[in-house]
Amino acid sequence: MTSSDASSPDSFDCVGLVNPGAMGSSIGAQLTRAGSRVVWAGEGRSTESHLRAGDAGLVDVESMQALVDEADLIISVCPPAAAVATASTIADLGFAGVYLDANAVSPATGRSVAALFNGSSTESGAIAIDGGIVGPPVSGPGSTRLYISGDAVAMGSIENLFESSNLEVRVVDGPAGAASAVKMCFAAWTKGTTALLLDICALADAEGVTDSLRGEWATSMPELSARADRSPAMVGAKAWRFEGEMHEIAASFAAHDLPDGFHLAAAEVYARLAELKGSRDTSLDEVVDLLSARV
Amino acid sequence: MTSSDASSPDSFDCVGLVNPGAMGSSIGAQLTRAGSRVVWAGEGRSTESHLRAGDAGLVDVESMQALVDEADLIISVCPPAAAVATASTIADLGFAGVYLDANAVSPATGRSVAALFNGSSTESGAIAIDGGIVGPPVSGPGSTRLYISGDAVAMGSIENLFESSNLEVRVVDGPAGAASAVKMCFAAWTKGTTALLLDICALADAEGVTDSLRGEWATSMPELSARADRSPAMVGAKAWRFEGEMHEIAASFAAHDLPDGFHLAAAEVYARLAELKGSRDTSLDEVVDLLSARV
Repeated sequence: MTSSDASSPDSFDCVGLVNPGAMGSSIGAQLTRAGSRVVWAGEGRSTESHLRAGDAGLVDVESMQALVDEADLIISVCPPAAAVATASTIADLGFAGVYLDANAVSPATGRSVAALFNGSSTESGAIAIDGGIVGPPVSGPGSTRLYISGDAVAMGSIENLFESSNLEVRVVDGPAGAASAVKMCFAAWTKGTTALLLDICALADAEGVTDSLRGEWATSMPELSARADRSPAMVGAKAWRFEGEMHEIAASFAAHDLPDGFHLAAAEVYARLAELKGSRDTSLDEVVDLLSARV
Repeated sequence: MTSSDASSPDSFDCVGLVNPGAMGSSIGAQLTRAGSRVVWAGEGRSTESHLRAGDAGLVDVESMQALVDEADLIISVCPPAAAVATASTIADLGFAGVYLDANAVSPATGRSVAALFNGSSTESGAIAIDGGIVGPPVSGPGSTRLYISGDAVAMGSIENLFESSNLEVRVVDGPAGAASAVKMCFAAWTKGTTALLLDICALADAEGVTDSLRGEWATSMPELSARADRSPAMVGAKAWRFEGEMHEIAASFAAHDLPDGFHLAAAEVYARLAELKGSRDTSLDEVVDLLSARV
């Protein structure tokens, strides 16, 4: 949408999705199943993206300009490091609708994205909503939540849009950046503790005390061994994109002069596992070898 | 014991305890209740230490020299930063028995302590056992475990000593440092995740999203809010001595070129809480204010 209508819409005629990865296409599918028109820009994208987009019922309008021209809501779901560049591209193409950044970025990055649309320099009339997704790609009811903060009317329209879907929308009371803060705090624990646990397994292995540590865990924290065993298959293939998210989390702490080293270390853990991209059934032994630089 | 008998003893006539803090005195009490003679050096120690030692049935031989002269087993339980200096003092006094370092130190520090006794430079005939304690001060059966590694005969005697006590002794297969490695790996998770959780609470507070984060935790990780609420009372008063332990854990990772930033950050968290020493019923609000440097 490139008109200069500055008021928030009551509903959306067309949703533009950037990009149909596993998460994005699962959100798009929720909308198309409810009858919404959802478009994406397939030009230059991978075969996997085209297949996922097709499965989700998304309409390929080919270029980003065509997407910007037609959509009155654009949802950005991309790796954290690409969030600002993606928003900037869309702002430069003259987008004048509601821009929902749903990426795992720091509150400060979320505010930077919002400023591209809400700032006086653009005068596009676009409205930015800050978002953060918690949970896996949308499947059944209760699987996944979208936190949003910003303009109340636009948020109301987004709530209406997903009302009958399996993506639960939760409004965060606060300015742009607040929804991202919820996401950062949540992932700080989940992805931070997983990285720590894998690092501990590598240390126990390096010291030759894995059996004794497992014995202690069996006594005092029986669930932890099982988590260590199942984590590699859960995070191995996705580690490559967790590194950037860990840096966004570290930046979130640093912005308030809070200790930020947990997630700088977690970024290092995931960076060492980056080559597992696309792998399946990654074992703990493989992860320990990669962390210990033995491969 | 200052004779130069280099063989491991089958049993111990007198145990020297350095020092009767909450953990040390709980271990001493297990031994005195079973009829063992346990001595400590009360010279220059605090009233609290004298009271705890008395309650535990420890005999005050006043000086460290008297303790070294009489004990054939010395158990060191002290803050991590004091472990090497304590061992060095005892080696210099000519101790020739079994020295059990039960402190929360890195494997490398544990090996440094062992070298003070087992090294050819001393020729004292003393035998060092590396140890690590997991759990709270000994109370009922199953509360607490002592991991040990090193000389097999001396470890057998230590196992016999605690056989009818509530302190469970577990032998770790490995050289000096292996028991400390188990302790480091265990505490890396427990104290590391607690520090992370408190840091996250401070971030949520700084961003004004505590309610939304608590709401998400209630949905997806219901036990985490309760842990956040109860952690301040559990760690506040002890945070001052966790800082050194976190540095020992970080050094344990760094020795194998594994990411060590989790525990450098945890050390910073506990350092900011150090002034809570001796406090009771510390609240999460107090902890968040201290972490945010708002007090």
